[in-house]
Amino acid sequence: MGKPLILVTNDDGITAPGLRALIKYMKTIGEVVVVAPDSPQSGKGHAITLDNTLFSAKITVDKEHGATEEYSCSGTPADCVKLALQEILGRRPDISVSGINHGSNSSINVIYSGTMSAAIEAGIEGIPAIGFSLCDYSWEADFQPAETAIKKIVNEALVNGIPRGVVLNVNIPNLGKKDLKGIKICRQARANWKEKFDKRTNPMGKDYYWLTGEFELLDKGEDTDEWALANGYISVVPTQFDLTAHHAIQQLNSWDF
Amino acid sequence: MGKPLILVTNDDGITAPGLRALIKYMKTIGEVVVVAPDSPQSGKGHAITLDNTLFSAKITVDKEHGATEEYSCSGTPADCVKLALQEILGRRPDISVSGINHGSNSSINVIYSGTMSAAIEAGIEGIPAIGFSLCDYSWEADFQPAETAIKKIVNEALVNGIPRGVVLNVNIPNLGKKDLKGIKICRQARANWKEKFDKRTNPMGKDYYWLTGEFELLDKGEDTDEWALANGYISVVPTQFDLTAHHAIQQLNSWDF
Repeated sequence: MGKPLILVTNDDGITAPGLRALIKYMKTIGEVVVVAPDSPQSGKGHAITLDNTLFSAKITVDKEHGATEEYSCSGTPADCVKLALQEILGRRPDISVSGINHGSNSSINVIYSGTMSAAIEAGIEGIPAIGFSLCDYSWEADFQPAETAIKKIVNEALVNGIPRGVVLNVNIPNLGKKDLKGIKICRQARANWKEKFDKRTNPMGKDYYWLTGEFELLDKGEDTDEWALANGYISVVPTQFDLTAHHAIQQLNSWDF
Repeated sequence: MGKPLILVTNDDGITAPGLRALIKYMKTIGEVVVVAPDSPQSGKGHAITLDNTLFSAKITVDKEHGATEEYSCSGTPADCVKLALQEILGRRPDISVSGINHGSNSSINVIYSGTMSAAIEAGIEGIPAIGFSLCDYSWEADFQPAETAIKKIVNEALVNGIPRGVVLNVNIPNLGKKDLKGIKICRQARANWKEKFDKRTNPMGKDYYWLTGEFELLDKGEDTDEWALANGYISVVPTQFDLTAHHAIQQLNSWDF
């Protein structure tokens, strides 16, 4: 049996340190091909490019530590996965990993996450997929403490498979290696962002806004990703793209139609 | 009790015929305020604007048939809802509706849908929310046959409330009024897109792609939105933003961590 083929992508762009770290870790497990955005795509959710052209180029970012092949793409993370599967990879990857994101994608952030949309896109195509995020927005973030855990999760996924219709959302607390307590399977915490718009006036006198906000945890559960992260654990949330609220069907059937 | 305040948005842009139809229908139910993108945002998924400024302007699109107030916004559908709730509306809306989208958002399309991301964004904020889509991509689509059903669904939601954590994804088959058979509560059908990239070469000799694809239904269930639409029914799927695959937690807990 040959080495597994691993598709690597992200949403921070092909030169992001988090992606370069993930490539390095994945090269110890299999053959790595990268198809990643040519520019940052944070917060792009599950956007796809319908109204514009897509460009892709084979490039070498890091001759020594890079992947077998690397391609930049002008589109979103979801576009990258579609293009990789349909046009770039000659065969079906054994697994698709995205990240390591610079910043958390836990709880409600999964909805806005380009990192997770790449994983979900691969999952829709039936490919085992995992998104990795480190709870540190800095470009100088230290990914190394999580290396062992990341490899372990990918290896377990390759050995056991991931249930159909499910992708994994992995978040890593920003801790040194000796403070990481382990890996916990969790549910997505209930949370939202209390938006604050920073209103300014441009030099031409026109008002504009910057979107900012404060994270608001609305969940006291100890089985959530937020609890795990706050207590030193790496959180793994099985995440699905069947969005049906099955539990609500019965109630809606009582409506008067 | 005053008239309900209805926030209306969409992803096809503030001048789209589907939005104008929805405004007209909602004006028979309540006071309508529109905050909608100033340009088409189809396929933008749950994108938000983190790396750019947001502009918003109070405008009049249609003096006779327009809403009480209308605002265009340079951002995505999710941005529009955030800006509406935080900056534009003086009070909390009683319901938020988006659409009527020109084109289906049934089954897996919900993942890519700007229309539904607007509804989900309102749902995250605890506001009852519904996305409406007509299965006709044409700008000349006829929304009138669905008018009665759309009003009925909104009125039922105002009377009964929508379960917390749930928003409604309503799709309408492209049929004349006498061929519409009724409204069915459904689950999201399992389906995906078989991508086809249309590869071309630009005048400078550089290759580029257009993303196209064919819809592939992978579900034989008769309780799905696709079945309902194919059989003349308006489909209503309760849709959630807790993406946790709760059924998979037990299995993942057997992994060797």
